[in-house]
Amino acid sequence: MAAEASLLLALDLTGTFAFALNGALTAVRMARLDIVGVVTLGMITALGGGIIRDILLGALPPATFSDWRYLAVAAAGGLVAFFLSQRLDRLALPITVLDAAGLSLFAVTGASKALDFGLGLGQAVILGAITGVGGGTMRDTLLRQIPSVLRADLYAIPALVGAAITVATVQGGVYGIPAALGAATACFAIRMVGVRFDLNAPSPPGKSQQPPARGGDGGRPADS
Amino acid sequence: MAAEASLLLALDLTGTFAFALNGALTAVRMARLDIVGVVTLGMITALGGGIIRDILLGALPPATFSDWRYLAVAAAGGLVAFFLSQRLDRLALPITVLDAAGLSLFAVTGASKALDFGLGLGQAVILGAITGVGGGTMRDTLLRQIPSVLRADLYAIPALVGAAITVATVQGGVYGIPAALGAATACFAIRMVGVRFDLNAPSPPGKSQQPPARGGDGGRPADS
Amino acid sequence: MAAEASLLLALDLTGTFAFALNGALTAVRMARLDIVGVVTLGMITALGGGIIRDILLGALPPATFSDWRYLAVAAAGGLVAFFLSQRLDRLALPITVLDAAGLSLFAVTGASKALDFGLGLGQAVILGAITGVGGGTMRDTLLRQIPSVLRADLYAIPALVGAAITVATVQGGVYGIPAALGAATACFAIRMVGVRFDLNAPSPPGKSQQPPARGGDGGRPADS
Repeated sequence: MAAEASLLLALDLTGTFAFALNGALTAVRMARLDIVGVVTLGMITALGGGIIRDILLGALPPATFSDWRYLAVAAAGGLVAFFLSQRLDRLALPITVLDAAGLSLFAVTGASKALDFGLGLGQAVILGAITGVGGGTMRDTLLRQIPSVLRADLYAIPALVGAAITVATVQGGVYGIPAALGAATACFAIRMVGVRFDLNAPSPPGKSQQPPARGGDGGRPADS
Repeated sequence: MAAEASLLLALDLTGTFAFALNGALTAVRMARLDIVGVVTLGMITALGGGIIRDILLGALPPATFSDWRYLAVAAAGGLVAFFLSQRLDRLALPITVLDAAGLSLFAVTGASKALDFGLGLGQAVILGAITGVGGGTMRDTLLRQIPSVLRADLYAIPALVGAAITVATVQGGVYGIPAALGAATACFAIRMVGVRFDLNAPSPPGKSQQPPARGGDGGRPADS
Repeated sequence: MAAEASLLLALDLTGTFAFALNGALTAVRMARLDIVGVVTLGMITALGGGIIRDILLGALPPATFSDWRYLAVAAAGGLVAFFLSQRLDRLALPITVLDAAGLSLFAVTGASKALDFGLGLGQAVILGAITGVGGGTMRDTLLRQIPSVLRADLYAIPALVGAAITVATVQGGVYGIPAALGAATACFAIRMVGVRFDLNAPSPPGKSQQPPARGGDGGRPADS
C-alpha cells in the first residue's frame, strides 16, 4: 500500500514537472516575458488543473497548497525551462511525450478523486478531463491565445477516455495501481497516435479545417 | 410546492439550453474550433455563471456537478449548435430571445440562492448579476474577446434590475413563483427593449461611442 | 487592539480604493467600454486578488462579500475614475504610488491570512503575492492583454518580498502592526525604486528585452 502510494506520488510529480517544463517553454516562445512570467506560467500549467479540480470539489485549500513538493517541482520545471530555453527547443519530442504523460496521469487521478468526493459518474469523467487540460487552458488564456484544447488536435478526447476508463474500473471494483496505469496508458496512446498522424477532432460542418500548428504554440498573436 | 419546484427547474433548464445554444453558436462564428471546443464553450456559457456563484457561496461541489440534468442539457445545446450551425444563423432573433430568458432566470435564481446563503442585500444583487453574465464572460475571454458585457449594450443592467427586484421581494416576504417570474420578466423586458432600440450604457465622458456589433459576436479577432 | 484593527482596516480600504481607481483608469485607456465595464473592471482589480485568496483558502464566501465596505469603496473608486478619467490622466504619479501602496498592503494581509488558515510558509508567501497581483491579472486578461505582471517591471518581486517578511515576522513571533507596516514598506520601496529606475526582472537568455510601456497600459490591442 505504501509502495503503491509512493508510485502514484512519483507519477504525479513526474507529470507536474513535465507540465511545468512544457508550459514554461510555451510561454518563452509565445510572448516576451520575464523570469516571473515564465516560471509563473510553468507553475500555472502544472498546477492549474488540480487547483480547478479541488475548487470544484470544495477540497480547499487545494492539494497544491498542502504538499510543498508540488510547488517545488513545478517551480523547478519552470526554472529549468527559463535557463535552458534555447536548448530545449530541440527537445520538442520528449516534451510532447512528457506532456502526454502528464495529461494521462492527471485525467486518471482527477477522475478518481472526483469519485472519492461523491460526484456522479459522468461528472467524474468531466472533472478528470478538466484536471488534465485545465492548466494548459489557463496558460493559453493568460498568453492571450484561444486555448489549443478548444481548437484542434486530439487532446481533450484522450483525457475523457482515460477518465472514463478510470470511472469504469472504480465502478467495477477493480480500481488500483494496475487499472490506473491501464487507463493512463490508453489516454497516452490515443494522444500519441493523434500527434503522430496529426489527427484532429471534427470541425463544424461547412467549415473547412486548416488546423493550426500543433500543440500549445499555434499561431503567434497578430500584434505581439 | 412540488409543482412550483418543477416549474422553476423547467425554467432553469430552459435557460441552460438557450445559453448553451447561444454560446456554442457564438463560438462557431468567432473562431476555428473543433467539436470539443464548440461543445465546451456552449457548456461553459450555460454553466459558468452558476459555477462562479456556487464557488463564491462555498456551495461546493457546484449544483452543476450534483444534478446531471444540467450537464446533459448544456451538452445537448452545444451539440445542436455544432451540427446545425449553418441553419441556426437564420435564427438570430429566437436565439437572442432565449438568451435574454436565460439571463433573466439566472439573475433571479442567483440572487435568491445568495440570500439563502446569508449574503447581504447588495451582495446578493451583485451575485445574481454575476450568475447571469458569468458564463458569457468566460466564453468571451476564452475566445480572446473583450467580454461584450463590459463594452456596450444593456446586458448587465437588466440583470442587476432583475436581481434587485428579487432581493426586494424576498425582503418584503412576498417571494415565490409569481415574484420570481415578475423579476425575470422585468429583466427580460429591459433587455429586449435595449436590443430593439439598440440602447447602450453610457461611455466615459469625452469618448464618442461607436458601439460594436450587438450581442456576443462583436468584431472578429484580427487573425482568425 | 481595536485601534490596531481599525488602522489595518483603514489601510486595507485605502488599498482597495487605489486599486479600483487604477484599474478603472487602465480600463478606460485600453478599450472602448461603457460605465458597466469601467466600474466592473475597477472592482475586479480591487477585489479580485482577495477573492482568489479566499477561494484558495476555502474562506467562503470571500471577505469581499461579507463586509459591504469593500464593495462600496471599490465601486466608488471605479465611478470616480469613470467620471474624471480625462483629468486623472494627469495624475499618473499619484496613481502609481497608490497602486504600489495597495500592492504592498494586500501582499502583507494576504500572507498573514494564509498563515492563519494553516498554510505552510512557502505557500503563504506565494498566496500573499497572489493577493497583491491577482486583481490586476484578472483585469488584464479580461482586457485581452498579457498580464503586465508576467511581462516586465518589478511587480511580483516586491510583493513576494513583502509577503516573505510578513511570514518571517509571524514565525519569529513579532508580527503586529509595526511588522506589517515594515513589510509593506519594504514592498513599497522596492516597487517605487523599480518604477523610478525602470528596472525589470530578467528575461530568458538569448532574448533581448525591449520592455513594453510601463504599468498596466503597455501596448494597445491592434484592433480596438
